[in-house]
Amino acid sequence: MSITIKEVAKVAKVSTATVSMVINEKADHITQKTKDKVFDAVEKLDYKPNYAARSLVTAQSYMIGLLLPDITNPFFAELAKGLEICLNEAGYITFLCNSRNHSKQESRYIEAFIARSVDGMIICGLTKGNEEKLALLRKRNIPYLNLDSRFIKNKYSIEINDEEGGKMAARHLLELNHEIFAFIGSKSKFSNIWNRYKGFSEVVIEASKKVLLFETSLTKEGGKQIADELFKSEATAVFCGNDLIAVGVYEQARKRGIKIPQQLSIIGFDDISFADILVPKLTTIRQPLEDVSSMAVKQLLKMIKDSEYEFISEVLPVELIVRQSTLKLK
Amino acid sequence: MSITIKEVAKVAKVSTATVSMVINEKADHITQKTKDKVFDAVEKLDYKPNYAARSLVTAQSYMIGLLLPDITNPFFAELAKGLEICLNEAGYITFLCNSRNHSKQESRYIEAFIARSVDGMIICGLTKGNEEKLALLRKRNIPYLNLDSRFIKNKYSIEINDEEGGKMAARHLLELNHEIFAFIGSKSKFSNIWNRYKGFSEVVIEASKKVLLFETSLTKEGGKQIADELFKSEATAVFCGNDLIAVGVYEQARKRGIKIPQQLSIIGFDDISFADILVPKLTTIRQPLEDVSSMAVKQLLKMIKDSEYEFISEVLPVELIVRQSTLKLK
Repeated sequence: MSITIKEVAKVAKVSTATVSMVINEKADHITQKTKDKVFDAVEKLDYKPNYAARSLVTAQSYMIGLLLPDITNPFFAELAKGLEICLNEAGYITFLCNSRNHSKQESRYIEAFIARSVDGMIICGLTKGNEEKLALLRKRNIPYLNLDSRFIKNKYSIEINDEEGGKMAARHLLELNHEIFAFIGSKSKFSNIWNRYKGFSEVVIEASKKVLLFETSLTKEGGKQIADELFKSEATAVFCGNDLIAVGVYEQARKRGIKIPQQLSIIGFDDISFADILVPKLTTIRQPLEDVSSMAVKQLLKMIKDSEYEFISEVLPVELIVRQSTLKLK
Repeated sequence: MSITIKEVAKVAKVSTATVSMVINEKADHITQKTKDKVFDAVEKLDYKPNYAARSLVTAQSYMIGLLLPDITNPFFAELAKGLEICLNEAGYITFLCNSRNHSKQESRYIEAFIARSVDGMIICGLTKGNEEKLALLRKRNIPYLNLDSRFIKNKYSIEINDEEGGKMAARHLLELNHEIFAFIGSKSKFSNIWNRYKGFSEVVIEASKKVLLFETSLTKEGGKQIADELFKSEATAVFCGNDLIAVGVYEQARKRGIKIPQQLSIIGFDDISFADILVPKLTTIRQPLEDVSSMAVKQLLKMIKDSEYEFISEVLPVELIVRQSTLKLK
C-alpha cells in the first residue's frame, strides 16, 4: 500500500493539514523548522504525493499534453524530443499521445488530456473536424499551441513559412532549367501542405511553366503508391510535400530503374535526419526544428503562468538545403 | 469554468451521489430510468468527468504509461505505435514519455506515472541503476512489463531471442567465407546488446575465427564515430548492435569511399523501416514487432484485471533478412 499523508503527519508530529500545505507549496506562513520536520518525514517514509489528489488542491498538474499525428515520421519524433527537452528544463512532465492521423483518436486524446487536468497542450497537425476541441480548451482555460497546423489557421499557432518554402523549391528547379513540374502531397486535408503547393505552383506558373498535381498520403507508402503515375508523366522535377513521400518515390524509382537525379530531380520538405543517408542525398527545405521547439515552450509557459498574456503568433523561416537529388537540365 | 457534478445532479434531478455512482460505473442497483436521466444531463451539459477526482474514487485511471529510451530511433517509434494501437482497442489511453537514455529522466518519468495513478506501465530499455524503481512498482501494486530490457533480466519481461539473433548473423557471415569479424555496440550497459554479442562471438570463436569489439552509443552518431576505427581494422564483416549504428557506418563509408558490401559486409539488428531504403539495402536481424506489441498488451491487461494472474515470461524468435549489404568472399 502507498504511504499516506496521515503517516507523514504522524512521523513529523504535525497535523495532516500542515503536511498538505507544505507539500503543495502553500506554506508561506509555516516556519522553516516545521517545514523541515515534514520534509524529513517525507524522505524517511519515501512518501510520493498522489498527483491525482494533489491536482485537486493545487490546480496544477505539472503535466503538458503533446499530441502528434505520426510518431513514426522522424520529423515528429525529432520535434517531440526537442519539445520534451525544453519542457523538462522548465520542470514539466511531457505526456505524448500518437493519433496516427485519425481524427477520432485525436479528439479522444485531447479529451483525455483535459480530463486529466494538463496544465497546457501542444497539438501538432490538428486534423479537419476537430476545430471545436480548440474552443473546448479555451472554454476550460487550458492554454494550448498548434504546431504544423494542417487545417486551421488560428491565433495560437507557431508556423513555419510553408509558402515561402514552396517558392524556394520552385526557384531552385527553375534555375536548373526544368520545364514540367510535379507536386506530391495531400493538399485538400492539410493547410500547411497546401501552402507549400501554393507557393510552389505560383512561382512555376509565373514562369509560364506547368505543374502536375499528385495526391497521396503523407507517408513513405504514399510516395511509393503514387510514384508509378509520376514516372509516366512528363515531369522532370518533383517537389514532395514532405521528406517521407520522397523516401517512397526513391524506393519505387530504384525498383523501376529510374535514375535520380539524371532522369528525375526531387526536392523534399522537413529535412529529417534520414534525408542525408538517402542515395543520392536528398535536396530539401529544412524546418528550423530547434527554434520551433524552444519558441513553442517559451510561449506556452508564458500562457500557463499568466492568463492575461497575449500570445504572439510566429512564422519561422525555412531554408533550402541543396544536396544531390536535383540536377541541371541541358 | 468546468461543469461540475453538482450541476449535472441539478439538471438530472437526482443526488450528486447518484451521479457519481452512475459516472463511475458503480450503479448496479440504480434503475435504468435514473441512469438515463444522468446520461441525458451529462450530454446536455457536455460534462466531462474530472479524472483527477474520478481516479480517487474508482482507483482506475484507464491510463497506461509507456516509457521509451529514444523516440527518434524508428524501432521504438514503430514499437510505440504498435502498442498504442493494441491498448487503444482495449479501451486504454497510452501516455508516452521519452527518457533519451538518461537514467535520471527515466526514474523521474516512472515516478510521474506512479504519482498520476497509471493502471499499468510498459518500460522499454530500462537502464542500469533503476532496478529499485521496479521494486517500487511492485510495492504499489502497479503491473508493469519490460520490453527490450537492456540491463535487468526480470520476471516481467517479454524478450526477443537476442543471443540467437547474434548466432544467425555469425552463421550467415561464416557461410560467406569471412575470417575476421567485428561487433559494434554498447555491451557493458545493455544486456540485450550484450546477448547479441555473446551469440555472435560464440559462433565465430567456435569456427576458430576472430571477433573485434568496438564500443559506441546505440545511435547513428555512434556508428559514424566508431566507423573510422573499424575501417582501419582487418575486419571484412561487421555485425552492428542495432540498425541505427549501421546507418552511421554507411554514412562514414560513403564519405571515405569504402564500398559496401565489396569491401565490407554489414548486418544490422531490428529491421527498422529505413533498413530497406539504404543503398545497398541492409541485411539485418528482424524483431517481430507486431508479436511483441500484441503479446505485451495481452499480458499487461491480464495483470491489471487479475492481481492473481501469474505472468508468463516470453522469448520471441527473430529472423535473418538477407538483403544486399553482405557479400561472399572469394
